[in-house]
Amino acid sequence: MAEPDFAAHPLIPAIAQDARDGRVLMLAWVNQEAFRTTRETGFAHYFSRSRNRLWKKGEESGHVQKIVDIFVDCDADAILYLVEQTGPACHTGRDTCFFRRSGGADGLNPAFGPRQPE
Amino acid sequence: MAEPDFAAHPLIPAIAQDARDGRVLMLAWVNQEAFRTTRETGFAHYFSRSRNRLWKKGEESGHVQKIVDIFVDCDADAILYLVEQTGPACHTGRDTCFFRRSGGADGLNPAFGPRQPE
Repeated sequence: MAEPDFAAHPLIPAIAQDARDGRVLMLAWVNQEAFRTTRETGFAHYFSRSRNRLWKKGEESGHVQKIVDIFVDCDADAILYLVEQTGPACHTGRDTCFFRRSGGADGLNPAFGPRQPE
Repeated sequence: MAEPDFAAHPLIPAIAQDARDGRVLMLAWVNQEAFRTTRETGFAHYFSRSRNRLWKKGEESGHVQKIVDIFVDCDADAILYLVEQTGPACHTGRDTCFFRRSGGADGLNPAFGPRQPE
């Protein structure tokens, strides 16, 4: 169970987190092919539900995500990509897709400091 | 579109992130009732797909998640809860559910430093 359980869940949500400052950048969907391609190429790939195809993040914009580490959750049905993000993660030009504060004004979600020593 | 689009997506994935150190704690599912209850009570609620009911995180374990902030993504189909986590987030007793490193040994996903000044 150290790998995502695509047999039970053909599409699994993947969180992209900035490996430098911990900011959550986006959430997208991953199928087995996208996961394998991510592992093989070292760049984040997803499965586009709207276009029904494999999608390399940044394939058009150049705003690619270099994989630093990958974690799978306890139920093997969620994925965490730690990435080095080139350019803004969001197609709107914001650093992160999570720029809408519920119940309030817009505001980018927080960045954190450098990683603490282990 | 500052709120999740439950009309288009009855179940929306929600990321819980530790508001103190940026660690990604878990991913679970939220419907309109869970989201409203989260907003009203200030504690993270989800919708359990396996039990088919509203679920307050920590309702049995006491490992509740106090809401610090809530963000919605650009497509209004993903949610980010910034939380103060009481106790471990994972039912296995780990701090985070993302303790399995893909293709390698177990290891908790990284924590980050204190939030940087704005």
